Amino acid sequence: MKLNHLVESQQLSVEIILSLFKRADEFRDSADKPLTGKILAALFYEPSTRTRLSFESAMMKLGGNVISTENAKEFSSAVKGESLIDTTRIISAYADIIVIRHFETGAAKQAAAVSPVPIINGGDGSGQHPTQALLDLYTIRKETGRLDNLTIAMVGDLKNGRTVRSLCYLLGKFKNIKIIFVSPENLSIKDDIKDYLMRHDVQYEEQTDLNKCLPLADIVYMTRIQKEQMTAGEYNKAAGIYKIAEENFKLLKSSARLLHPLPHVEEINLPLKTEQTDERVAYFRQAENGLYARMALLAYLLE
Amino acid sequence: MKLNHLVESQQLSVEIILSLFKRADEFRDSADKPLTGKILAALFYEPSTRTRLSFESAMMKLGGNVISTENAKEFSSAVKGESLIDTTRIISAYADIIVIRHFETGAAKQAAAVSPVPIINGGDGSGQHPTQALLDLYTIRKETGRLDNLTIAMVGDLKNGRTVRSLCYLLGKFKNIKIIFVSPENLSIKDDIKDYLMRHDVQYEEQTDLNKCLPLADIVYMTRIQKEQMTAGEYNKAAGIYKIAEENFKLLKSSARLLHPLPHVEEINLPLKTEQTDERVAYFRQAENGLYARMALLAYLLE
Amino acid sequence: MKLNHLVESQQLSVEIILSLFKRADEFRDSADKPLTGKILAALFYEPSTRTRLSFESAMMKLGGNVISTENAKEFSSAVKGESLIDTTRIISAYADIIVIRHFETGAAKQAAAVSPVPIINGGDGSGQHPTQALLDLYTIRKETGRLDNLTIAMVGDLKNGRTVRSLCYLLGKFKNIKIIFVSPENLSIKDDIKDYLMRHDVQYEEQTDLNKCLPLADIVYMTRIQKEQMTAGEYNKAAGIYKIAEENFKLLKSSARLLHPLPHVEEINLPLKTEQTDERVAYFRQAENGLYARMALLAYLLE
Repeated sequence: MKLNHLVESQQLSVEIILSLFKRADEFRDSADKPLTGKILAALFYEPSTRTRLSFESAMMKLGGNVISTENAKEFSSAVKGESLIDTTRIISAYADIIVIRHFETGAAKQAAAVSPVPIINGGDGSGQHPTQALLDLYTIRKETGRLDNLTIAMVGDLKNGRTVRSLCYLLGKFKNIKIIFVSPENLSIKDDIKDYLMRHDVQYEEQTDLNKCLPLADIVYMTRIQKEQMTAGEYNKAAGIYKIAEENFKLLKSSARLLHPLPHVEEINLPLKTEQTDERVAYFRQAENGLYARMALLAYLLE
Repeated sequence: MKLNHLVESQQLSVEIILSLFKRADEFRDSADKPLTGKILAALFYEPSTRTRLSFESAMMKLGGNVISTENAKEFSSAVKGESLIDTTRIISAYADIIVIRHFETGAAKQAAAVSPVPIINGGDGSGQHPTQALLDLYTIRKETGRLDNLTIAMVGDLKNGRTVRSLCYLLGKFKNIKIIFVSPENLSIKDDIKDYLMRHDVQYEEQTDLNKCLPLADIVYMTRIQKEQMTAGEYNKAAGIYKIAEENFKLLKSSARLLHPLPHVEEINLPLKTEQTDERVAYFRQAENGLYARMALLAYLLE
Repeated sequence: MKLNHLVESQQLSVEIILSLFKRADEFRDSADKPLTGKILAALFYEPSTRTRLSFESAMMKLGGNVISTENAKEFSSAVKGESLIDTTRIISAYADIIVIRHFETGAAKQAAAVSPVPIINGGDGSGQHPTQALLDLYTIRKETGRLDNLTIAMVGDLKNGRTVRSLCYLLGKFKNIKIIFVSPENLSIKDDIKDYLMRHDVQYEEQTDLNKCLPLADIVYMTRIQKEQMTAGEYNKAAGIYKIAEENFKLLKSSARLLHPLPHVEEINLPLKTEQTDERVAYFRQAENGLYARMALLAYLLE
């Protein structure tokens, strides 16, 4: 079944995922402009320059145009009290597709319910970030050659990080996946995700010792621990432990890959040379993959 | 006579208006790109995401490109003390046409006086908003099939609302128009507009009782009452009275149309289903019409 | 040798400069679109609407597209602590060329060191602004017909103004150049520039009396004295003296030209009519030249 909107990663079937990845591979070297004359509206209620520019570049590479607001929360009619539903109905008259980034969980779903044009969730509150999950998975396949038979360590703030949540929903669709959740106890993954994984026969375990887990993983998926979620003492303790530096990066298997949704701060602290030459450092290629994954999604939703 | 700029709605003759509407109708279904290679500068000194995106989308649909600033007041050389005249002279070197939104009445006129490229007033202080008036009038014709023989109720803050002012100037150009101004006494329409209407043989009356007026109107043009213009007590009183909800919406004639320049807040409070199915709710179509009216204006000024 | 990036004006050889100027002249009347399908990222960590719109317009006139952020300092991942190096590596995956404006001296150089795509310095802290220098020099040649045998008075804040610094580096490449630095003593040109000029056989002198210098100059290059760099008393004194108004503008030779990187405030105070009709007023043509100079640079770096 063709999707009209992409609001949460569960919507993506294995069949759609594989066809998007095929498309993404093709767009890598293609100069095709299938979206010539189409307009994308980037409606960002909270700033995320990286995600916004990635979508905008994707649209332009496909021949399309972009109208954009970087800070709709402060600048737009939202200030005057207009509902997201009304804003969506109006912007949908100006654009052929809308990507919404919002500070409230569920915002993209609300917009999709009334929009005559496709809505893409570009991240909503502590909810989901399905295109990030899509590019994460695309990177995993690109780097390892497979989507089944993988051990994935997810590290950092697993409680608040929406990219981890969205990626788990996608991983649940593949075979023989094992997830090792590595986090301080107060930032452990929530029960709804654990329930989902159990229902989908994904093995998982919860650990607190990062170095013990690093040698086991095919993929190490680091996330940022957010200062604003805890006391300074807790933060300093967690940030010191849930961290990849030169000494423990060596613990990774030679075929393993280090991913990160970026931006990273001190939770990854590798020498520039390692970043530039060690092929296990995959997070910049991951960011670039976002471009092709988003091109594939835009083309899919607009066809 | 061909206009070089659009600064105030009085400039628009009936002949120009009708030719713009014809053009707007044509652009609705056309894939023509008459402005390929042209550049629009959106120079917004106060944020108005809706108006800006509407202009930008219009320009792109015609094949043109857009350079844009969302908050020139804070971000641009205005901070360093540069005059609007100088900014205009410089931006006119980069763009083929400029739309200016400004917090000061008269700003667009100032810019037009020195600009070698067309200036469009995108709203200036408590002055005018002529493209809003143009799309309002276009919507009235689209919805009722005519521009003469109309009874129009204008409701809300008629003192400060520039869209009402600009629309009155346009209505003065047509025959057998009757305007009912409905507002609290402290927000009634200003004398300059009343004088203009009298000189142009437009009948008008001033009322305070909304429900008495609703059954008489072909068009009900609602506007937002702005909290910042009065005391909390006055606001609450006015907002409770000058309001369309389910119960008084029923008072409209079956052929009537409800318009609003948007964004609306509590002054319109209709169920989603009514908004989606009752054809008297015209304000989302009105917003879409803005796109076609602006396309027509851009093409007209650039030819 | 072909440049990969433009970080500081010293990089530009006479040969490159002349070929860029030839190109700029050609682009003035051409409808060629040599950069169709290419994407420019405008990564502005401090607002500069004029410079940004000039680059964006230049890119669009060449057929390219633009992704853009107006205030990366506040809006982007910089807030979360991401390094400029990481941001550059990621944005370079989305764009074919990047112009960076940054509040820290050396930022563009840092970015260029890791970027796989060309970096253009759009102004960095108190460092350089090489495209401003390029357009200044292009204007000097356009207006006087030559790049050698020139007497140039540079006026105002010579200590903090990066445009003066960048222009001096370029002037050092030509023959029989004489520079008269005119500034209050506390804002005089720094020693590194004087050393550079001496090494390159450029005559210079330092003066405090503007009116004495005006009749001698082929080019008067005014700059803004910045309030924030001194006490109110010092500012008022300097602003009253280092100023071109109707009475001392008359002291300029009839063949002289008045330039300014703009925006100007009270340091130039000429009647509108003089600005519009006296051909010695060259600063608006200078701003327009920026468009063609930047077009030439973009085309050069992307070929």
